[in-house]
Amino acid sequence: MTVPVPADVLSRLKAVLGEGGWSQDPDRLAPKLVEWRGRWTGESPLLALPKTTEEVAAVVGICFEAGVPITTQGGNTGLVGGQIPRGEILLSTERMRAIRDVEPYDDVLVAEAGVKLAEVHEAAAAVRRRFPLGLASEGSATVGGAVSTNAGGTQVLRYGMMRNLVLGLEAVLPNGEIWNGLKRLRKDNTGYDLKQLLIGGEGTLGVVTAAALKLYPVMASRAVAFIGLESPADAIKLLARAKEETGGAVEAFELLARIGIEFAVKNVPGTRDPLPEAHPWYVLAEFSSGEAGSAEAAMERFLSQALEDGLVRDAVVAQTEGQAKALWAIREDQSVAQKPEGVIWKHDVAVPVSQVADFIARANAAVLDVAPRARILAFGHVGDGNIHYDVVQPESGAADPEHSARREEGMLRVHDIAASMSGSISAEHGLGVMKTAEALRYKAPVEVEVMRAIRNAMDPKRIMNPRVLF
Amino acid sequence: MTVPVPADVLSRLKAVLGEGGWSQDPDRLAPKLVEWRGRWTGESPLLALPKTTEEVAAVVGICFEAGVPITTQGGNTGLVGGQIPRGEILLSTERMRAIRDVEPYDDVLVAEAGVKLAEVHEAAAAVRRRFPLGLASEGSATVGGAVSTNAGGTQVLRYGMMRNLVLGLEAVLPNGEIWNGLKRLRKDNTGYDLKQLLIGGEGTLGVVTAAALKLYPVMASRAVAFIGLESPADAIKLLARAKEETGGAVEAFELLARIGIEFAVKNVPGTRDPLPEAHPWYVLAEFSSGEAGSAEAAMERFLSQALEDGLVRDAVVAQTEGQAKALWAIREDQSVAQKPEGVIWKHDVAVPVSQVADFIARANAAVLDVAPRARILAFGHVGDGNIHYDVVQPESGAADPEHSARREEGMLRVHDIAASMSGSISAEHGLGVMKTAEALRYKAPVEVEVMRAIRNAMDPKRIMNPRVLF
Repeated sequence: MTVPVPADVLSRLKAVLGEGGWSQDPDRLAPKLVEWRGRWTGESPLLALPKTTEEVAAVVGICFEAGVPITTQGGNTGLVGGQIPRGEILLSTERMRAIRDVEPYDDVLVAEAGVKLAEVHEAAAAVRRRFPLGLASEGSATVGGAVSTNAGGTQVLRYGMMRNLVLGLEAVLPNGEIWNGLKRLRKDNTGYDLKQLLIGGEGTLGVVTAAALKLYPVMASRAVAFIGLESPADAIKLLARAKEETGGAVEAFELLARIGIEFAVKNVPGTRDPLPEAHPWYVLAEFSSGEAGSAEAAMERFLSQALEDGLVRDAVVAQTEGQAKALWAIREDQSVAQKPEGVIWKHDVAVPVSQVADFIARANAAVLDVAPRARILAFGHVGDGNIHYDVVQPESGAADPEHSARREEGMLRVHDIAASMSGSISAEHGLGVMKTAEALRYKAPVEVEVMRAIRNAMDPKRIMNPRVLF
Repeated sequence: MTVPVPADVLSRLKAVLGEGGWSQDPDRLAPKLVEWRGRWTGESPLLALPKTTEEVAAVVGICFEAGVPITTQGGNTGLVGGQIPRGEILLSTERMRAIRDVEPYDDVLVAEAGVKLAEVHEAAAAVRRRFPLGLASEGSATVGGAVSTNAGGTQVLRYGMMRNLVLGLEAVLPNGEIWNGLKRLRKDNTGYDLKQLLIGGEGTLGVVTAAALKLYPVMASRAVAFIGLESPADAIKLLARAKEETGGAVEAFELLARIGIEFAVKNVPGTRDPLPEAHPWYVLAEFSSGEAGSAEAAMERFLSQALEDGLVRDAVVAQTEGQAKALWAIREDQSVAQKPEGVIWKHDVAVPVSQVADFIARANAAVLDVAPRARILAFGHVGDGNIHYDVVQPESGAADPEHSARREEGMLRVHDIAASMSGSISAEHGLGVMKTAEALRYKAPVEVEVMRAIRNAMDPKRIMNPRVLF
């Protein structure tokens, strides 16, 4: 708990926000004070609900002057606790809901921070365009949150992370000034690219109030296949071949382990084993093309060659949109499918793509050394080198306290291996309050120093998300 | 001219650089003290020629301690004077020439700062990959320079600028510390993305010593067409259609004006008018695909539909690699073709794509108001909204002093129009010493303040490229 916020600051905040612009009602605050999995809970003396950028600026300005800290929250879908206040003013973007502009000639959509990703998808589709960043949580996750955490998802392989999809930003800086960087230019070399600091800055360098997002053409054809194979090493070879043969038309290339299929079949009603026989590993691959029929043809050519060469053991290609959805559901359900299995250590690591197989082998050995009967589930965005490496407790009817007790040690071993490969301990989820201290183990001191110097230059009183990052 | 560098600093620099690592020979320095078009000339008490990152760190460390300024130079191809010293130590990366690694599974190439872009292209091709950033000056331009200036080129439409092609950087910071950020990860959300500050930082926040660059698949088919049309507005409509129909397989979409074709035919030996009749405007379009024959087929479909709809007046598709090169040469020669025509005001502006036609119309009116007989040549990367807007003096045998005299006024009018459209006065060339002062006219004070605060935090003595940026 931080220092109590002075009463006069609360009064001034209420005055600038006006009726409906703030709340101290415990019921209104409650859902915003709990992380959705219940891992973090918090408290806040005031929920600020600004509707305009000017109101955000007024709130931040008052807090800056008084040295009162703020935590900003979007859709509250973060996985590292960065959005949950511990005594700070809670600034929610939920009332900043306007899509200010959609311009198909510019391939741009300008949305305020509180717009949900799913709403961006709809607005883009309405002008025959596509915004290619999808998350399981896109019905709740907001533009502001996705920008501030540099969100990823399953289409990063082709389109990049949020960082790559932002043309411009509007933000309120820690001193309460509004920065209008809401350009929609593809090119602008006139000084440091400040928006890059706010993207992935986890709310520590300001409040993102609106973003100009890049749109893409709608694809005329897509092909989704579920592929059984021998090993992660084969998955990497297959990926290289897919990229070469399609000229980069690979939309997604997701690795799954056999145990993940078994969990899904067992724990997610309606899930069917996608292939007649079991295989040690699987890849869910999606190709797309601007030309009708072309993705399907490319997938057929690609798979028959790989089957012939023995790189692939078996594969099924979705023949209908419904089948494609069912195959994707197996991938998307990998987290919920493991939940009933008890205590799980989760990791969100990235390593160079060429080292994914080696990482999995080394991490398995290290984990089994710590927890010999653990069930290991490695899956994720192999095309980006991003593995969600989950370690599930031994089979049992109830939560295993021993597995919980070994979590710290196991996590350290896994992260040490990723770091030894110049990898990342947080590929897409960010550091938040969960991983900031741990990240200090792996970051070069010079890098942390520079980050602190920049933060101090922009937020000398450290009022923005003070417990997050360095 | 800055303050003379103390003799003991020079001695210490020579000592850490060792034999062959420095020069004070006027003949050795001369080519590095003149901008290639002769617009800027400079001077330097010492040319530092470090071969390793450690030597760069030693040089910068000595200069930091003594408060002695440094200008860093790569291939000396910059267009805004940022690479020419005016009394600073001149740090050249010309001896940092190693390609440290090429890893096709990671789609990564790690090159030191002094490696030329053309060498990157060759090394990528050797492993059946492609580095998709090409510049007319790629035989001289270096990796370090291209990173520091966030270089663009003709393939930005599909692959983005240099910023989008860098996975990691190694750099020496202004205090002489080495930052090893040479990761090759596609995803890493662990704090601010510091490399983004150095990319496009024009050497003011450190010396880039090496970069991990993204590679892409080689394309199996490509189609190049030269298209005659009525207006820039039609070019924008055509671009939107090309992106929609090909699902984003447009590699390049370059606008040219009739007068540019005439200059090329007249002034560049061997150039032929690409179409039988003259058209007011032209587009050079390139499609590519991973599938053999697919780009050609897409181009044929696209053009026949556009001809039928009257959006296109005429078009020719290259049937051989030689023809494709000849068509591209017309585009690439647009700068040299105008040179014999006398005094030229050049602009490198960007506006939102949807406003390109409006920009050209408004800028033409403003320019003809200042210089009624000027010949206006607008061309460039219309797909990125980036127009090289050149204003050539009236036809005459000799350089026109009157046209020179009106340059400032004309440039101001053109830039004011771009700025009024939330455009950029330097889309890809950067600010250097040429445009920094002018950029202050258009930047919001809050943005300049933040840039200065960051620079001051990282380089409190302002020793790195001190005359460049804010």
